[in-house]
Amino acid sequence: MTNESTTHHAHALVASQLAAVEEALLNLPDIQPPALRKAVETIVASGGKRQRPIMTLLVAGMFGNLNERKVIDVAAAVEMLHTATLVHDDLIDGSLVRRGTATLNAAWTPAATVLTGDYLFAFAAGLASRANNVQVMTIFADTLGVVVAGELRQAFTDWERRSTREDYAKRIYAKTASMFVLAVTEGGVISGASEQHIEALRQFGTFYGNAFQIMDDVLDFTGDQATVGKPVGSDLRHGLITLPTIVFLEQNGKNSMMNCALKGECTNLEYDAIVDMIRKSDAISISINEAAIQTHRARRALEIFPDSPYRAALLELTDLAVSRKL
Amino acid sequence: MTNESTTHHAHALVASQLAAVEEALLNLPDIQPPALRKAVETIVASGGKRQRPIMTLLVAGMFGNLNERKVIDVAAAVEMLHTATLVHDDLIDGSLVRRGTATLNAAWTPAATVLTGDYLFAFAAGLASRANNVQVMTIFADTLGVVVAGELRQAFTDWERRSTREDYAKRIYAKTASMFVLAVTEGGVISGASEQHIEALRQFGTFYGNAFQIMDDVLDFTGDQATVGKPVGSDLRHGLITLPTIVFLEQNGKNSMMNCALKGECTNLEYDAIVDMIRKSDAISISINEAAIQTHRARRALEIFPDSPYRAALLELTDLAVSRKL
Repeated sequence: MTNESTTHHAHALVASQLAAVEEALLNLPDIQPPALRKAVETIVASGGKRQRPIMTLLVAGMFGNLNERKVIDVAAAVEMLHTATLVHDDLIDGSLVRRGTATLNAAWTPAATVLTGDYLFAFAAGLASRANNVQVMTIFADTLGVVVAGELRQAFTDWERRSTREDYAKRIYAKTASMFVLAVTEGGVISGASEQHIEALRQFGTFYGNAFQIMDDVLDFTGDQATVGKPVGSDLRHGLITLPTIVFLEQNGKNSMMNCALKGECTNLEYDAIVDMIRKSDAISISINEAAIQTHRARRALEIFPDSPYRAALLELTDLAVSRKL
Repeated sequence: MTNESTTHHAHALVASQLAAVEEALLNLPDIQPPALRKAVETIVASGGKRQRPIMTLLVAGMFGNLNERKVIDVAAAVEMLHTATLVHDDLIDGSLVRRGTATLNAAWTPAATVLTGDYLFAFAAGLASRANNVQVMTIFADTLGVVVAGELRQAFTDWERRSTREDYAKRIYAKTASMFVLAVTEGGVISGASEQHIEALRQFGTFYGNAFQIMDDVLDFTGDQATVGKPVGSDLRHGLITLPTIVFLEQNGKNSMMNCALKGECTNLEYDAIVDMIRKSDAISISINEAAIQTHRARRALEIFPDSPYRAALLELTDLAVSRKL
């Protein structure tokens, strides 16, 4: 089965519910001026592959609970929380483009961008509250705390610590896996899953999220610039130390060239050379292997659930994480 | 009774609970680096008069529900939400000092300030979720939406519209009264109040919040610079059109001098002259009268509740709103 048809499979299973999620996402409350509303609508509408709400829906599907309105609201809340964090991230990073669309930050003042992110947080919380379930809200608040604390830690961690696997593991949990955990556990909670089932979902989300982010970090080195849409080794060029670099250091030790990269002080030519070295090294296959291990763990976590098309689709998503090209 | 003893009265009634609120506020989860944690602790600790949590506690007191842990958590959540919005506000306004303390914005990067505000939002939501009550969370999310939508509207409203009473009423509701409504209705909800009682609290919060903000805006003109801690007419000098200016315009019409003030384009000398004109005009007493009307309405809203020291303290707070000097 190709990647293309795998995504189609998961999508097809929850197509009508996903359409309802899209509608909920664009049913934005009062926002002024009209031009800002339009910009926010564009950002929300251009929201990637909707992986997180698809996960929520597939989990609800496993519990035979796909057609409750609450499930739609929670899936939309998860995606909206993700979107809100991206709006603030783009401001923090000074990013001008995301998913091929101009960021708010590119066209509006910092004040408007901060407020718009806050507004989307409020909207996300409002969507979650519609589910009328305290546990949904608690997980929601906790996840926001984890994501933001992770970003704060990342902003202030010295470069020595950033190049450790321990720091990397914390970082990718806070940045990616925590939101995957949110997506799947909320799907379980809203379906009245047992504590044992919620724990299995938590593990699935953690391992799948880790695998997904590791592959993202590998693709930053190996991807084709035209496909990925940014220069090869873009993370390292921005001072972001990810698994391939950490593994490369483990294998080769620090040299003067790596030192400048770790401190974010290389020239462009130096970066070109280092990125090329890492790209051609074993660090890539070792990193992909780590993603495969995480994927395997994610798949194991789902064994507790009976076989169903929804479980099969979740398993296929994990395959896709490792085989994807962007 | 003097203002001083009035505040003491309200404080004394809920002193031990307020101490527990302070403790909950400073029990900040994981935040790095230590220097940022210290800065956040200073901001949280220097948090003014704690009016909002005092209101929540007094309302819980009216319902004989003051000694539940949930009440403390909800009161702390209300104050923390308020603090989070202030952190982002200071970034948006570029303010360097608040309540005599350096703002985060003054000492940290915009990125750190945005993230810290987000972190405090997450903490506020976490505190609220401890109450294990869906309605508490729903009101919380709705209020954040109102506050942020109001700030966005304010940021993008043209000066023509800003000088209307209608726009001013919306603005002070979003900025101040909505948080007062949050504080008192959450105190009711967590105490199992009836829908009729919640509605009375909503009215009380609205009218009291309006009165409080109108007096704040009056004091910006009439206050002594040394007491208020900022130049007289500071709002107008920053392009913020408040009730005294709106009333002055109603009474005197627009002239060329007012035109430059409404557009935020006057010279300092022109501002001095305009602020002096408004200060000495009937606009001040008319505005104070409007605050008194709102206070009267707030007091009426509480008539539905039986007499108690807690109700008496809430009534005294409304007196204080109009008689206060800063």
